[in-house]
Amino acid sequence: MPPTLSVPQLIERKREGGALTPDEIHALVSGLMEGSVLDAQMSALGMAIYFQGMRGEEIAALTAALRDSGECWTWPSGTPPKVDKHSTGGVGDKVSLVLAPLLAAAGVWVPMVSGRGLGITGGTLDKLEAIPGYQIAVNHARALQCLEKNGAFIAGQSATFCPADRKIYGLRDVTGTTPVHALIVSSIMSKKLAEGLDKLVLDVKYGGGALMTDVEKARALAEALKETGDRNGVETSYLLTPMDEPLGATVGNALEVGEAVDCLKGGGPADLRDLTLRLAEAVAPCDRAQLETLLDNGAAWARWVAMVEMQGGDATAMEHMHDTHPGPLRVPWPSPADGIVRAVDAGSLARASVRLGAGRNRPEDIIDFAVGFSHIKKTGGKVVRGEPLFFTHARKQSDYDSILPLLDDAVEVSGGQL
Amino acid sequence: MPPTLSVPQLIERKREGGALTPDEIHALVSGLMEGSVLDAQMSALGMAIYFQGMRGEEIAALTAALRDSGECWTWPSGTPPKVDKHSTGGVGDKVSLVLAPLLAAAGVWVPMVSGRGLGITGGTLDKLEAIPGYQIAVNHARALQCLEKNGAFIAGQSATFCPADRKIYGLRDVTGTTPVHALIVSSIMSKKLAEGLDKLVLDVKYGGGALMTDVEKARALAEALKETGDRNGVETSYLLTPMDEPLGATVGNALEVGEAVDCLKGGGPADLRDLTLRLAEAVAPCDRAQLETLLDNGAAWARWVAMVEMQGGDATAMEHMHDTHPGPLRVPWPSPADGIVRAVDAGSLARASVRLGAGRNRPEDIIDFAVGFSHIKKTGGKVVRGEPLFFTHARKQSDYDSILPLLDDAVEVSGGQL
Repeated sequence: MPPTLSVPQLIERKREGGALTPDEIHALVSGLMEGSVLDAQMSALGMAIYFQGMRGEEIAALTAALRDSGECWTWPSGTPPKVDKHSTGGVGDKVSLVLAPLLAAAGVWVPMVSGRGLGITGGTLDKLEAIPGYQIAVNHARALQCLEKNGAFIAGQSATFCPADRKIYGLRDVTGTTPVHALIVSSIMSKKLAEGLDKLVLDVKYGGGALMTDVEKARALAEALKETGDRNGVETSYLLTPMDEPLGATVGNALEVGEAVDCLKGGGPADLRDLTLRLAEAVAPCDRAQLETLLDNGAAWARWVAMVEMQGGDATAMEHMHDTHPGPLRVPWPSPADGIVRAVDAGSLARASVRLGAGRNRPEDIIDFAVGFSHIKKTGGKVVRGEPLFFTHARKQSDYDSILPLLDDAVEVSGGQL
Repeated sequence: MPPTLSVPQLIERKREGGALTPDEIHALVSGLMEGSVLDAQMSALGMAIYFQGMRGEEIAALTAALRDSGECWTWPSGTPPKVDKHSTGGVGDKVSLVLAPLLAAAGVWVPMVSGRGLGITGGTLDKLEAIPGYQIAVNHARALQCLEKNGAFIAGQSATFCPADRKIYGLRDVTGTTPVHALIVSSIMSKKLAEGLDKLVLDVKYGGGALMTDVEKARALAEALKETGDRNGVETSYLLTPMDEPLGATVGNALEVGEAVDCLKGGGPADLRDLTLRLAEAVAPCDRAQLETLLDNGAAWARWVAMVEMQGGDATAMEHMHDTHPGPLRVPWPSPADGIVRAVDAGSLARASVRLGAGRNRPEDIIDFAVGFSHIKKTGGKVVRGEPLFFTHARKQSDYDSILPLLDDAVEVSGGQL
């Protein structure tokens, strides 16, 4: 930043709808980390961005500045393409657990860094920690070992990644600036860019169980994410996927691991398998038929077992998660009538699962891996009166009782041809 | 503030254009001073207010909260009405020095707390400090003594007044939120309300030498200031006055004191006398003719001498300010032609006077009391070629040379009937 240009002047320019240059944006982010840009200044700027927005070039520069505030992974030349997937968060979404070993089996490298769940959005790390012994911490040297041996790993974000993103995220959280488009886009993409990727596919969800209910808003976010990736040298594509009913038939950490295992063995729910394959196609070096084969012939499963073991996890426990994390209560929810499942409300089931202990309201909340929902019927399916629409796995009766109001309208069954 | 309502929620409500309640505003200001509301939160809120504004009720509550953050003066019952004047800042504006003793002579009490100059706006305190020995610090006990003896004093704002206003002002200064209407209004009015007034008259300036060039913006500010005063129990009125040419014939601290003395003795420039009388009429218990008499019969001057002496000042020095603060250089600016003065650019002369040392670019700058301009011709006056349009008082030749570009177009003379 030219020494004659002050931080208040940059804030004023944004306030009046002007654009910041990449150099200015880098200087602001560096200054925030060094203390020469005050929290108060970044917060006022964040609010100005809420009202005035940022252009694609500005968002790309901000994303790069956040990425560059911490460790950025690079990989030896001559190694396979590095690819990853990011989802904006759904209910029952265990795709990452299937996708990473599937892509590795297809011959690309997947240095996947994931997050924890908060609110109705489940987190891949929480699911992984339901596997006894699984270590989410992976430094760069270990990451390279994992890639060289297995072609993939799934790790938690280390404190060395994007510290400026964490700092700004913390400020947004307390200053009423969480829903700032440019800051959301740069926060998501900076962490992915730090992985040193060649290709990235985004799963941007919309619907009642997603952060965005509206498909057009989801598309705008997806386009901005794609532009930001492309501008920073990562070939980025996206799928817009509905999130009205949960993905698959389970919600809850241990239950979802079990379902991912089914899928990795060639089985599992059709919607989970299909979405995983569609996302894989976007970044894989082979076609859908070949990817299906890798699920069906045990290659993906074998890769997953190797990945879990290399990260300290007990792979045999994955095959009987009910025993690993027993839930004392398992309560069926009977269909009130013969009919067709018209809707399954992912949002209601997600909120109920958080109440049961499967998710967090606050970052410091403790997860209960065993609880959640299983055998959730899919929309369009036929049911007879008394047949379970889903099973609730609860720690104790009072937990179950507390979610009954959420369950009442969670699944809609109406008459129709049986 | 209800314990369930968080600061981010209040910021979000303002961000979306909602209103804050008086209780919420008081809680925010108290929290800022106690540390439970972060600088970052107040700064984001300030930027949200820039875009969404505040209603009259909100501004009034914010003003009261700022006032209540520090010492608020009260006065014994049965004493004369307490009145004051506030100006939004002009060039050559020495009205306060005449108005305070004039009103005191008219029988009201004037507990006047003034500020320092910054930028092109001169400050009453700086002018007062050109009087040898003048002490600007007056605590409440001393203030009451001054009022009881003289009916008026002019003091500097003590650190005990409106600490929350100083805190917010400091944040606005670094976060690109100085031009936020609601924050400007509440900052001005909180300090005046803390004086414990019954009546207040505002001199809101517009034109090339004012902060606002546009009369309609000045009117909007004036109306908001008036509403805020009225809502807080102070009967408030205003004048909108042009500030295109300097007020009176001098700019610069010692020079302006000399001109104020002339006015207090019944002389001085017509525009200074007229504006002082118009402002006095708005809050005085008597009519214009009586006020004129108090200027012409020496009553105001005698009151001023008593006021200055009670605050430690050398009243005799006021009558020969040229000797008290001699300026080595005194350079006439000759009229280039016979003609009529079409315009005198207050802004140019003010910027030049700051360069000479009469004002400050930064709060820590040191004032040179001697420098400035005198004998400034008024718009509409006739001049002959070679006749001085003004005199520059400079500390040294290089200072004078540096302002020449500003002086070139400061006074416009064009042909016309002589």
